[in-house]
Amino acid sequence: MKKQSYAIIGTGALGGLYGSMLANAGHEVHFLLNRDYQHVVDHGLKVDSIWGNVYLHDVHAHQNASDLPPCDVTIVALKTTQNHLLRDLLVPSTDGGGNVLVLQNGLNVEADAAEIVGTDRVLGGCCFLCSNKVGPGHIHHMDFGRIVFGEYASKDITPRAQKICDELVAAKIDARVSDDLAMVRWRKLMWNIPFNGLSVALNASTKEIIDDPHAEALADAIIREVHAGAAACGVTVPDEAIHITMESTRKMVPYDSSMRLDFLNKRPMEIQAIFGNPLLAAKAANHEMPRVEMLFQELNYIDAANLAKAD
Amino acid sequence: MKKQSYAIIGTGALGGLYGSMLANAGHEVHFLLNRDYQHVVDHGLKVDSIWGNVYLHDVHAHQNASDLPPCDVTIVALKTTQNHLLRDLLVPSTDGGGNVLVLQNGLNVEADAAEIVGTDRVLGGCCFLCSNKVGPGHIHHMDFGRIVFGEYASKDITPRAQKICDELVAAKIDARVSDDLAMVRWRKLMWNIPFNGLSVALNASTKEIIDDPHAEALADAIIREVHAGAAACGVTVPDEAIHITMESTRKMVPYDSSMRLDFLNKRPMEIQAIFGNPLLAAKAANHEMPRVEMLFQELNYIDAANLAKAD
Repeated sequence: MKKQSYAIIGTGALGGLYGSMLANAGHEVHFLLNRDYQHVVDHGLKVDSIWGNVYLHDVHAHQNASDLPPCDVTIVALKTTQNHLLRDLLVPSTDGGGNVLVLQNGLNVEADAAEIVGTDRVLGGCCFLCSNKVGPGHIHHMDFGRIVFGEYASKDITPRAQKICDELVAAKIDARVSDDLAMVRWRKLMWNIPFNGLSVALNASTKEIIDDPHAEALADAIIREVHAGAAACGVTVPDEAIHITMESTRKMVPYDSSMRLDFLNKRPMEIQAIFGNPLLAAKAANHEMPRVEMLFQELNYIDAANLAKAD
Repeated sequence: MKKQSYAIIGTGALGGLYGSMLANAGHEVHFLLNRDYQHVVDHGLKVDSIWGNVYLHDVHAHQNASDLPPCDVTIVALKTTQNHLLRDLLVPSTDGGGNVLVLQNGLNVEADAAEIVGTDRVLGGCCFLCSNKVGPGHIHHMDFGRIVFGEYASKDITPRAQKICDELVAAKIDARVSDDLAMVRWRKLMWNIPFNGLSVALNASTKEIIDDPHAEALADAIIREVHAGAAACGVTVPDEAIHITMESTRKMVPYDSSMRLDFLNKRPMEIQAIFGNPLLAAKAANHEMPRVEMLFQELNYIDAANLAKAD
């Protein structure tokens, strides 16, 4: 069976890792790059990974989305704060009718891609990944790495989803297909909302949060609030996920969440996708998440003050 | 009628202001000082106030509580974070049977004094005051200034409370007696909890909180939560207090709350008195205040990290 071609929209800690592994496994992979373009053309892509290091010498690097060829699968690995650019970025590589796999943080983040290519061509997924970009074209994958993804518009495990999954697994990526994307997304929010949020609100690493009794109790309360919010939205995440989320974080290597890195580097934070959209979904189900709402409000204030300092 | 003598336990932004005005009006006032003692002995006490400036040349200054004479009224104007010292500080000036007026922030903060001198000798009150200590023995009173106080153990307006009030008013202090100290304290918490708390959690002035739509909405939600918490504890603060709290803050001169000043100067914050005690009171009434609890947890984390930096 012919290997599918991939376009990677956003070659950062996530897109750079998965794209490089697909390319390393023999796929034609086109990378959209911004600031790192020339460096990657000159020096390639370097991935230090717990799954084995990858060094891509000859990279299909593109600085403009209009130069991307039509691909079988386009992976959206941008920050959601860049989604206003998505129309320009997504059209060329999806021009031939290929599918889109949205691997962004948050809830309902597939809606932007669906508006551009049509709902029935969109899949979405979550990455349980500790990975940072440590230099131009240089990614450090430190822990975890699983992708769980599924159809955006149905609860079927479709042949196209299975095919993508098989290719990811063959490329040594820990990938799974799910028949319940909403469950996958809420399950991930049970980590992202407390730990991305508190890592910025408290200016703390995951370890500093877990090691402080007050911060740990707050993280636990927020996890429970997200769990209840999911239930109100019709997504019954098993109760043991509450305990597992806390314990897996306790065992995690000390880690700066992506939101904290955005904060420290004075970049806009993914507040709407990770906090605002779940709050809207819960509100539509007449359900309150007071701590999540408070974190949303605090982060919006902190984001504005932080970006004002960056000017 | 002979003017009562006063002891001021804690000559800071609050004790220094009110004590100086009482002394200026002819009362015998004994000030307990710590670091500023020698400066005040040499240079006196200087108060720049919207009520008129006061300069006290000859001050009854004391470095040790054991040197304080018995006084008719002892005003506790320490931070509650110093209450573990209260037994040593309070005994000498109350030895003759005088009364104690606790002018500290928070809820149930009279309990420590009551344990030492007996519940029936204690009054408590709140100060609605913008005042800072700007240098040794130098206080700057910028806005507001009202003291509202009453009996700790009853809902009576007693002759002794009225007498203290008359003396404060004669000394040009804006003072009122209340027959409902719990109401006074919860009413003040409606400001202190949101604005002390958020000024530290968001590292923001009152003006920065009010001017940001997310932070303002959060402050409003917290004010409502405290209002409902009071009601659960049997204290019915009039609804219009919600609106008035926000509007009076909007008109306030830009101000760093006392808690923010403690934070910025790496001093312990009054978290237990202002947040912990109201949460305990609400919990005893089976009432939840999730945002207040979250602020309590955040502040405890921030306080520990802040004091660790001060070492």
